[in-house]
Amino acid sequence: MMSKAAPKFYDVDMPIRSFVTKRLIGVKSESSVQEAAEKMVEFSTGSLIVIEDDEVIGFLTDGDIKKKVVAKGLKPDMPVKEIMVEELITADISSDIKDVLELMAEKNIQHVLIEENDDIVGIVTFRDLIDIERQKLETYISRE
Amino acid sequence: MMSKAAPKFYDVDMPIRSFVTKRLIGVKSESSVQEAAEKMVEFSTGSLIVIEDDEVIGFLTDGDIKKKVVAKGLKPDMPVKEIMVEELITADISSDIKDVLELMAEKNIQHVLIEENDDIVGIVTFRDLIDIERQKLETYISRE
Repeated sequence: MMSKAAPKFYDVDMPIRSFVTKRLIGVKSESSVQEAAEKMVEFSTGSLIVIEDDEVIGFLTDGDIKKKVVAKGLKPDMPVKEIMVEELITADISSDIKDVLELMAEKNIQHVLIEENDDIVGIVTFRDLIDIERQKLETYISRE
Repeated sequence: MMSKAAPKFYDVDMPIRSFVTKRLIGVKSESSVQEAAEKMVEFSTGSLIVIEDDEVIGFLTDGDIKKKVVAKGLKPDMPVKEIMVEELITADISSDIKDVLELMAEKNIQHVLIEENDDIVGIVTFRDLIDIERQKLETYISRE
């Protein structure tokens, strides 16, 4: 089946800069996992940066919570620090979409922190990159 | 910026049939939320159908677990039945991709159960529909 007027993908060589979410939602390292989950629900996000002494010291996703807390039958009252991931996977803000998608595929992750001059300035999620396509698809649907 | 050889979207008028996952992962209604989370981790899935007396009586996503258990500070030892969603949102297997995407957008959900002759025969997730695009994009990247 051929598509005549289907929308095209964005160009994967486009710079990531315009896809970066500058509003980073953070949680303190000593906060409980319960508080982290509340924050995720409040801000409709699947990940949080973890802060200690004004530094980003880790990253927490809802996958971490599901695997390390709920699936183990634990009450979510341990500090975030105990279940966060310490390795921060980052890309420079000058990267293009292709670089970031490749990094996501290679590391099997859906969130990449974005650095500019060695500071973390934002985040890009797989969902963000997809949502742009989805909006395009919805525009396409509504035009029909 | 124009893309010369960017891959095209699938045709949204294509039937959903070929995108349906026939392997439904289920959990018994009296199982604990902990067991449900273990099953999600084991099968790398974000949703489970809930079974009672060989009938599908509900649906459970990791969003439900995060919101109704972790964010409330609860130990995940209550039965799945207490936090599942009873309304089953379904589409007929003869639907096309567009119908299913519209249903997802309208109901703000990412999983749609698929019916054939009034039986639930599978599931389609937003992720499934997107992954096809992602594979296409990765093929496109690797070809360069």
